[in-house]
Amino acid sequence: MVDIATRVWNHKWKIDPIVRSLIDTDFYKLLMCQSVFRNKPDTQVTFSLINRTTSVPLARLIDEGELREQLDHIRSLSLTRGESTWLRGNTFYGKRQMFRPDFMEWFENLRLPAYHLERVGDQYELTFEGAWPEVMLWEIPALAVLMELRGRAVLHDMGRFELQVLYARAMTKLWEKIERLREIEGLKIADFGTRRRHSFLWQDWCVRAMSEGLGSNFTGTSNCLIAKNRDLEAIGTNAHELPMVYAALADDDQALARAPYDVLADWHEEHDGNLRIILPDTFGTEGFLERAPDWLAGWTGIRIDSGDPAKGAEAAIRWWKNRGEDPREKLVIFSDGLDVDRIEALQAQFSGRVRTSFGWGTLLTNDFKGLAPDDRLAPFSLVCKAVAADGRPTVKLSDNPEKAMGPADQIERYKRVFDVGAQERFAVEV
Amino acid sequence: MVDIATRVWNHKWKIDPIVRSLIDTDFYKLLMCQSVFRNKPDTQVTFSLINRTTSVPLARLIDEGELREQLDHIRSLSLTRGESTWLRGNTFYGKRQMFRPDFMEWFENLRLPAYHLERVGDQYELTFEGAWPEVMLWEIPALAVLMELRGRAVLHDMGRFELQVLYARAMTKLWEKIERLREIEGLKIADFGTRRRHSFLWQDWCVRAMSEGLGSNFTGTSNCLIAKNRDLEAIGTNAHELPMVYAALADDDQALARAPYDVLADWHEEHDGNLRIILPDTFGTEGFLERAPDWLAGWTGIRIDSGDPAKGAEAAIRWWKNRGEDPREKLVIFSDGLDVDRIEALQAQFSGRVRTSFGWGTLLTNDFKGLAPDDRLAPFSLVCKAVAADGRPTVKLSDNPEKAMGPADQIERYKRVFDVGAQERFAVEV
Repeated sequence: MVDIATRVWNHKWKIDPIVRSLIDTDFYKLLMCQSVFRNKPDTQVTFSLINRTTSVPLARLIDEGELREQLDHIRSLSLTRGESTWLRGNTFYGKRQMFRPDFMEWFENLRLPAYHLERVGDQYELTFEGAWPEVMLWEIPALAVLMELRGRAVLHDMGRFELQVLYARAMTKLWEKIERLREIEGLKIADFGTRRRHSFLWQDWCVRAMSEGLGSNFTGTSNCLIAKNRDLEAIGTNAHELPMVYAALADDDQALARAPYDVLADWHEEHDGNLRIILPDTFGTEGFLERAPDWLAGWTGIRIDSGDPAKGAEAAIRWWKNRGEDPREKLVIFSDGLDVDRIEALQAQFSGRVRTSFGWGTLLTNDFKGLAPDDRLAPFSLVCKAVAADGRPTVKLSDNPEKAMGPADQIERYKRVFDVGAQERFAVEV
Repeated sequence: MVDIATRVWNHKWKIDPIVRSLIDTDFYKLLMCQSVFRNKPDTQVTFSLINRTTSVPLARLIDEGELREQLDHIRSLSLTRGESTWLRGNTFYGKRQMFRPDFMEWFENLRLPAYHLERVGDQYELTFEGAWPEVMLWEIPALAVLMELRGRAVLHDMGRFELQVLYARAMTKLWEKIERLREIEGLKIADFGTRRRHSFLWQDWCVRAMSEGLGSNFTGTSNCLIAKNRDLEAIGTNAHELPMVYAALADDDQALARAPYDVLADWHEEHDGNLRIILPDTFGTEGFLERAPDWLAGWTGIRIDSGDPAKGAEAAIRWWKNRGEDPREKLVIFSDGLDVDRIEALQAQFSGRVRTSFGWGTLLTNDFKGLAPDDRLAPFSLVCKAVAADGRPTVKLSDNPEKAMGPADQIERYKRVFDVGAQERFAVEV
């Protein structure tokens, strides 16, 4: 077992890479990458870092040289033999050879493309431009580097035992959550916390603590490297970037309206079972479900990632009933802003009515709220998104206008095309 | 930095000695040993284990074979070259060559004598008989072995992460105490927690955390091995066993009444400065001070180890004033049942009136209260005392009848000789 405080202490004295492997990323990134590699290999996409919590002055906290060092290190990484063997030989979601030989060959030869970094005021502008399957793999490592360097900047001022007590407190805090989760009957929960983790070592600790504390109720982790090292299930399906880029590529409003379903039609061809999970909120859940083709109602489940999660799940239940499906056989994955209170409430409301599952992110792997002086380690809302595809801006509406992204005129256009009316606002904390 | 949880986890799989050195003991044991070696080398003394907390069934918790293995291991220990060098070469209380060459030569050749172990109901009877300078060195290691084996028995049922969280909670708890102690102006505090420690590794952690957290307000540790390893001051003077044994050896009541002062006369010859600390409570503080010779009032200070500590300190202040001494130049060491509340209160009451100092024991190195299921790691009151000398029983009265020891008729005799009246009772928890 790693003594995290010691390792963090050592960080102060020499460079210890934050991202140590190309598979230190979310499993769904690789699944999506394979889909993109097959369906849109030449699309030029721009990913961009966006710090939604502007009160955290990243450029004042993080030294630019250190940031470059970490990003350059990521560009030097390539798939190791053991990692490749694991991806090729492992069973994911019960399926062998999830990753096809042509994709694996491409991945084995991949180095991440160049980045563009510039300080603008107290923030960094960090962008990645290039072929979609390549640049999309920057998202998670870029977030991990920024999150961890911000953490290290704060930790740097602490004494050695102060540091150990900080981790002691964080461990205690998580364990108390686990003790509450243990009491929830029929819970199925996975780690979705790679992108906003406090650090790699800390995520690894959290995952193992969940594993011991919850046993088989802990279903796995989205982080491939940790899944591999700890012999756990790698978990994940797909994300907003697919419909966002497909939509940006649409030539007219009609094609735009069809784009979210085109994405899932491609996915439908490639995957079955538990990988057929709808992410309906990119341009508003309500309209998406209303206009969805019937074959989508036959999919295994739905992931609720913005808005009021209970409302979203109720909408899905109504929709399945209208389409003649039995909701009790359907999976609802909650993955937005979860903490124990919400997990308890959602499980109480939906257990027995659907199959529930939880993808727990930031407040699993980065709940240092209240643990450092001036709360300087509180989690904050950092994302890295596809902002353009083949020269056109992308748009995301989601079920929370606070999470909307894109140029104002395009947002208006998308709202019209997808018939999105007034939306409830929810504060975005993490 | 040691990852304690991992080490404890490993304890489960192989024997890891609890006592790893002959100087893993309290400094005052060695000081007293040298005095005894010089003044009473041939006195035959019996030390005996006494579990005051009978609700803790040691013999049911601790396997006899394991206990023997640990005790046998201690009998195999001898002073290492480095330890000997440290004792010979180090400065203790500002003095070089505290330990004289003849004593060191004897100590270098010492192996601890045989022990007698027997299970009696749910408790162990553990006794040590032999020449006083030899058997007296069993006290601390015997206590450490029993305390730690009891802890290990409880830890054995825990999962790996549960274990790490246990230590995380204990670390947090101690650190919160340290944060409060930091606020006490002029605090001088040392670790006196060897005898009741949770474990060696844990004591070491506590000492180092105190050192980082309190800086020079932390004055050192009573544990010689930790003082040596961590380059800290070794702290301690003398204990009840000296007057208890001297008193037992007295041939009549007159000699008995003189015994506590005879001890200190021997000590007076050997030590000066901060080592001239009176421990007045063995047969009642009040009478001891009343009848004390004037030269004792010239000593540096007093240690308050039973009864109401504030009353004891006030009594000492009155006594010094009566004897024409300035209390503000005197040292009062509080060492009984301390925790932060009491330390704060005593410092507030006595700061500026005397020089205060605190010897913090069980609740520094073993405060696992409330941290394990059914509170099975709560500290308890285990002692190992000189119960006989040259065939005569020893007696201790102290300023708390709950701490009194010895045959009833002898207790009555001592009360008469030392003129001890009604005493206030205080619960003995640790």
